[in-house]
Amino acid sequence: MRDERFANAELVAFGMTRRKGAPAAADDGLRVLAEVFTPTVAIVGKTWGLHLRKVLRVSRDENLRMIDESVGFLVGQGKRVVYDAEHFFDAWSDDREYALRCVAAAAEAGAAAVCLCDTNGASLPSFVSEVVRDVTAALPEVVVGVHVHNDSDCAVADSLVAVEAGARQVQGTINGYGERCGNANLSSIIPALKLKLGLDVVTDGQLRRLTETSHFVADVVNAAVWAHAPYVGRSAFAHKGGLHVAAVEKAPQTFEHIDPAKVGNEQRVVISELSGKGAVVRKAQELGLQLEGDDARVATVLRRLKAREHEGYHYEAADASFDLLLRQALAPHEPLFRLESFRVIVEKREDGRAVVEATIKVHVGGERIISTAEGNGPVNALDSALRQAIVSKYPHLADIELVNYKVRILDETKGTGAVTRVLLDASDGEESWGSIGVSENIIEASWEALVDSIEYGMLRGRARGDGE
Amino acid sequence: MRDERFANAELVAFGMTRRKGAPAAADDGLRVLAEVFTPTVAIVGKTWGLHLRKVLRVSRDENLRMIDESVGFLVGQGKRVVYDAEHFFDAWSDDREYALRCVAAAAEAGAAAVCLCDTNGASLPSFVSEVVRDVTAALPEVVVGVHVHNDSDCAVADSLVAVEAGARQVQGTINGYGERCGNANLSSIIPALKLKLGLDVVTDGQLRRLTETSHFVADVVNAAVWAHAPYVGRSAFAHKGGLHVAAVEKAPQTFEHIDPAKVGNEQRVVISELSGKGAVVRKAQELGLQLEGDDARVATVLRRLKAREHEGYHYEAADASFDLLLRQALAPHEPLFRLESFRVIVEKREDGRAVVEATIKVHVGGERIISTAEGNGPVNALDSALRQAIVSKYPHLADIELVNYKVRILDETKGTGAVTRVLLDASDGEESWGSIGVSENIIEASWEALVDSIEYGMLRGRARGDGE
Repeated sequence: MRDERFANAELVAFGMTRRKGAPAAADDGLRVLAEVFTPTVAIVGKTWGLHLRKVLRVSRDENLRMIDESVGFLVGQGKRVVYDAEHFFDAWSDDREYALRCVAAAAEAGAAAVCLCDTNGASLPSFVSEVVRDVTAALPEVVVGVHVHNDSDCAVADSLVAVEAGARQVQGTINGYGERCGNANLSSIIPALKLKLGLDVVTDGQLRRLTETSHFVADVVNAAVWAHAPYVGRSAFAHKGGLHVAAVEKAPQTFEHIDPAKVGNEQRVVISELSGKGAVVRKAQELGLQLEGDDARVATVLRRLKAREHEGYHYEAADASFDLLLRQALAPHEPLFRLESFRVIVEKREDGRAVVEATIKVHVGGERIISTAEGNGPVNALDSALRQAIVSKYPHLADIELVNYKVRILDETKGTGAVTRVLLDASDGEESWGSIGVSENIIEASWEALVDSIEYGMLRGRARGDGE
Repeated sequence: MRDERFANAELVAFGMTRRKGAPAAADDGLRVLAEVFTPTVAIVGKTWGLHLRKVLRVSRDENLRMIDESVGFLVGQGKRVVYDAEHFFDAWSDDREYALRCVAAAAEAGAAAVCLCDTNGASLPSFVSEVVRDVTAALPEVVVGVHVHNDSDCAVADSLVAVEAGARQVQGTINGYGERCGNANLSSIIPALKLKLGLDVVTDGQLRRLTETSHFVADVVNAAVWAHAPYVGRSAFAHKGGLHVAAVEKAPQTFEHIDPAKVGNEQRVVISELSGKGAVVRKAQELGLQLEGDDARVATVLRRLKAREHEGYHYEAADASFDLLLRQALAPHEPLFRLESFRVIVEKREDGRAVVEATIKVHVGGERIISTAEGNGPVNALDSALRQAIVSKYPHLADIELVNYKVRILDETKGTGAVTRVLLDASDGEESWGSIGVSENIIEASWEALVDSIEYGMLRGRARGDGE
């Protein structure tokens, strides 16, 4: 990373205080930090008597010397030092005077910042607020930070009240990734600092990339962003039901705490049996299709929608399928391909091996293509066979990935004879969308969702002008 | 629901204030509430000028009359009334005097509780705390509640600081289910109230069922409890990495904010096999199998169990499969049949028709039987073919019905290549039981659950002495 340059970020090397009973200059870990290429380093140390007694087996005085000498050594080597006080809030409950002496020792030894860690995530906001207020009053010369874990489901709130109480550094992670219940979620903290506490921690333009950043990081760690995640989730600004939709149309702030565009997200009107004509017209406008409420096609769409919902379709999590339903009614388009037939064979052989094979016959651009693929399961095999058949005509297809596959049995009480609803989420790295299929036959339901997903992905790619 | 009786819950019927310009007694909605069987009813009304102007188009005075007369009417009809003040916190920012007059009107009209709603989830804890403190001071005679949405990722924290500031009712949902970013998560609020704020909102025994309750509700809505969910998630008390594990073994509170047993969860140490012996012995005893903790077979069962759980098995809702796993280790029994092979073909034909056919070859009591059946879907066809093959040997099978079939995709982010978990509930009219199957191939997973379900049902029937 030494040669990487960042516009908005700074790398910090991380280590810990020296081992007990040995000089800092002779400590292998500290020597690595002293020589590392990052101008700033962070070291973590103990504060809580329980840890000193049970884990580290170090006296309280030696612990203070470890903090003092470790910070002092690194400062002497020209480093900017952030000192992380592990378990600070537990230590404060146990013995506030000693806890304060620990961070004061780091500050006096020249630390640029001392960070109060709620390592176990035990603390509630009122306590965090009180502690941070006392520490910032006691150490006016140093930047005070907080590092909170989410075990009490309060990490975001704790971080925000800490800033209100005087903290000026927040340690967290995008999407709150971290051990146990996660770390403080920066995807929620950054917009609150900027939009609610009026602190200019990022520019307006950077904030507009928040949703994209959150989804990018999720892609990197191969996890989906939770649809209901505050600020950045796909459903964070989703409205359904006649009353809410009508209100949001009159004034978005009636049911939206911020303008979603400010964090790069968008309002979604989810279509459900509660929706009326207004929602359909609005949705059509979102799709760039002009439509008036008295257009006969609105009634047609609503009728189809209600019939589909009666069969078990459910468009709240399937925007792509709804989009295609609307387009078919308003501005019919040529499908990517025409299916002639498919066949899936699942065999459990005598030797215990399972073999899954799908064969598909499709017509694409005047050509008839037969394609066979194997897979882990029947849907995976069908997906592979379809892609294999049409990817040469549609290279953008290679960017479309199925990221989420959900199956729900409707009327579960019918056992294996019940109707199956399949929800599929897909992404092409720039956008993500959901599609749906419903059938008594899980393979047919999956096929339907798969086709919608691919059709929609290709449409979006074309709308953005991506090559095909 | 009229005839249901609850040990710890009370049903509340929900509606809204009367329409503008008409008497409460003539309002259809309020008349339904007056006649409904629940002793308590809740009504929601407006507080925020923005909504009065833009959505409801009602004057501020008429809104106060709507609140006063609606609450008064229901109280006069003998109801205990909870008044939900929608958008209360936005209204307070806009015009605190009017906001207070709205809830005072409800209180003066006889409401037993007024609930301050952060409908848009905009508020941060310090603000919520301040507002609740002012309202409880102004209305000392009435119970004040809060109802917070999670759009700022602070719904749990907001609810907790509200209680510290004097609120005595918290509205929320198990696992935080709710529109947009969800409602306040009771799975996090209840343990904090009890263990951190010292409020006896549930008994110790009830709190120990928190994790189970959270997972039960998740199963009902067919959603997975997030592994990292505070208190109730599978990873909420999971430790890995040598240092943390060593510390937790010396003293759990070094890295655990509460004792996980208090909420019915457990510590998970990824590298240890120490947990669970007691549970296996207990379960074996439940099944009538004598077993001591130091029996080598206990270790065998635990090893198998851990391997299975690592693959995605999950026995909480699959008692039948767990029973069979235990029996196989402790008291091996003869299976009902031996599978030679099966083949399922799903065809989507050129005429649009889907055809599903399953063929199965099994050995039953020395005989080899080949059986083919059609079905709505692949699992249904397999189920039919299996029954057809063996029912003549096992007439009790005809009583066993599959009543519930659930499919969950594990690691949904792998799209159609992910592992599938199938949960099957069956009943023979006297008992019901759950079984599980896990595989990358949904058909194999279903087959596994199907076989367990039928094996177990036959065992139970035999144990009860039913004819075969």
